[in-house]
Amino acid sequence: MPVTPWDVTGNVDYDKIVKEFGVERISPSLKKRIEKHGKHFMLDRNIFFAHRDMPWILDEYKKGNKFFLYTGRAPSGPMHLGHLFPMLFTKWLQDVFDVELWLQFPDEEKFLVKQGLSFEEAQKYLEDNMKDIAALGFNPKKTHFLIDTRHAGLMYKEACKVAKKITFSQVKATFGMTEQTNIGSIFYTSMQAVPAFLPSIIKKKKIPCLIPHAIDQDPHFRLTRDILPKLGYYKPASIQCSFLPPLTGPEGKMSSSGGAAIYTTDDAKTVKKKVNKYAFSGGKDTLEEHRKKGGNPDIDVSFQYLRMLFEPDDKKLAKIEKDYKAGKLLSGELKAILIEKINTFLAQHQKKKSKVDVSKFIYKE
Amino acid sequence: MPVTPWDVTGNVDYDKIVKEFGVERISPSLKKRIEKHGKHFMLDRNIFFAHRDMPWILDEYKKGNKFFLYTGRAPSGPMHLGHLFPMLFTKWLQDVFDVELWLQFPDEEKFLVKQGLSFEEAQKYLEDNMKDIAALGFNPKKTHFLIDTRHAGLMYKEACKVAKKITFSQVKATFGMTEQTNIGSIFYTSMQAVPAFLPSIIKKKKIPCLIPHAIDQDPHFRLTRDILPKLGYYKPASIQCSFLPPLTGPEGKMSSSGGAAIYTTDDAKTVKKKVNKYAFSGGKDTLEEHRKKGGNPDIDVSFQYLRMLFEPDDKKLAKIEKDYKAGKLLSGELKAILIEKINTFLAQHQKKKSKVDVSKFIYKE
Repeated sequence: MPVTPWDVTGNVDYDKIVKEFGVERISPSLKKRIEKHGKHFMLDRNIFFAHRDMPWILDEYKKGNKFFLYTGRAPSGPMHLGHLFPMLFTKWLQDVFDVELWLQFPDEEKFLVKQGLSFEEAQKYLEDNMKDIAALGFNPKKTHFLIDTRHAGLMYKEACKVAKKITFSQVKATFGMTEQTNIGSIFYTSMQAVPAFLPSIIKKKKIPCLIPHAIDQDPHFRLTRDILPKLGYYKPASIQCSFLPPLTGPEGKMSSSGGAAIYTTDDAKTVKKKVNKYAFSGGKDTLEEHRKKGGNPDIDVSFQYLRMLFEPDDKKLAKIEKDYKAGKLLSGELKAILIEKINTFLAQHQKKKSKVDVSKFIYKE
Repeated sequence: MPVTPWDVTGNVDYDKIVKEFGVERISPSLKKRIEKHGKHFMLDRNIFFAHRDMPWILDEYKKGNKFFLYTGRAPSGPMHLGHLFPMLFTKWLQDVFDVELWLQFPDEEKFLVKQGLSFEEAQKYLEDNMKDIAALGFNPKKTHFLIDTRHAGLMYKEACKVAKKITFSQVKATFGMTEQTNIGSIFYTSMQAVPAFLPSIIKKKKIPCLIPHAIDQDPHFRLTRDILPKLGYYKPASIQCSFLPPLTGPEGKMSSSGGAAIYTTDDAKTVKKKVNKYAFSGGKDTLEEHRKKGGNPDIDVSFQYLRMLFEPDDKKLAKIEKDYKAGKLLSGELKAILIEKINTFLAQHQKKKSKVDVSKFIYKE
């Protein structure tokens, strides 16, 4: 079960990750504290399941010391549903707490890490990915896109201050880097640290930072948390989600390299075909057996997509689960529900994306 | 005899460096070719003594394919005479060949490498060092200062393209880096590569690059030469000088950390005191012995400063050498000649420095 920022495969053992990474599970009482500000099914259903220092963030917020949000997207291809879902939760956090969001686009990261990706390709995806994210409805007045190579005039010097405090030995231990790793990849984690304190520099005061992210990014932020107090800033807090599984099975995470993903650009026909063809089913082999013994929603990818992303209504989801377990709902019917949901979402998303003005979001110095 | 970009001590064995670094000595015929364009005592006296690909630079120049010059200064303290002397040769090259000069100020390099140097201190020295260099009389219309952290919006993405092609193993072998080296220092060499091809990007055509520099910087440019053809640019050529020795002896190089240096800010009294007190003498122990056996100019620092920097007139220098060897010129008298030369130079330099407008030199995108 390797889980690094570049590799998540196999059956992800979240208990083991929590222990190894040293994060904390979101306790029922912490969940209640957050839910005083608003409810979100991703929190309620433990899709966002772990954190670092969330109680501190809420304490400071209560005192009037507002945090800012920081999350990011490294462009290396078109975006798929797995990329969007932590963004949607981030948007909810922004709305509910009424806070600024800094959104990093490390357009050098994947270029550095992936042998076959050219800088120009990464730039093409950057443009596309920014539109996808802007289309999710973030408040442009409170949302600032930071593009590593374009904002390097602002970021590089801060990254150097971080980099001075990290040795090769540490990145080796944290990311499994070797002597054959290129020196850009080795340096990169310092750039990922910068948005966690850049707003404190710009606003000239220490501001708490909350990073919503998929748990595979935690190694970067572990290093960031080590360094930032040494530079005079708060340790960033985080709230972490599990992975949207790939269409082909409940293990690993949806990924462009690892097989069938649903992209934000897919049309209705493609979605229908992909789900029907690839979506791993928890149903029984024959109709007769399914009717008799029922399906298993825990391993059924279509059900999991509804649970994690497309059916916020608990009652509706419970009915689907019940009917599927009872064998009343067939795999094909479950897939049809999902297809309908995805296509409704994507049709709206694509419309918004075609109209969005990304320039409103890009940070201006 | 360690010679790295950060450490030059002991008796520098230039023959060994030439062999180990794989540079070529400037042959008499190459010297003649360069001297067709103009004469400079630093070339004539073999102070600039080695090169890479100079014949190619001259061939291209002859064909009408002009090169640009690239050199730099990493701010970590006030500038001393050892820093100025390759700059003076660079200015001569600019004038004689009528070419553009790109001057890098890697304001992060020494901050990253030196434990005790803060970023803010490095910035203070940057401002001061830029004035020192601008005051040497470079043509502001053809001279462009690049400051790594301020021009990072232009440079960082290009550095990443370089960095993707350099492994930790290579910087370990080239600079003696270890697992305890910080990741900023590891990345840095990619930033030093950028000015060697940035003008080709800006002008949208491949332009030959000639780097005049002190030989200890060669390891950086060896890596740069490996990488640039892979990115579609020419290998940069170089012309390399030996080190101005420290006041205290003919070994090593003048350095702010390693004892008595003469700074561009020193007043006449300070210069007099430093030279009289510290300048290593090739004279004999007693006046009687000196008059009888004569001094040794080869190890006499005052004579070497005249030879390398302050007495361009060959006849005058030869007379000083002859008189010193003959015991006619005493050490105190030789020192007095040098003090006079330095103070005349510094008085003019300080005046120019106080009036110089650095902003005319800083590259504007």
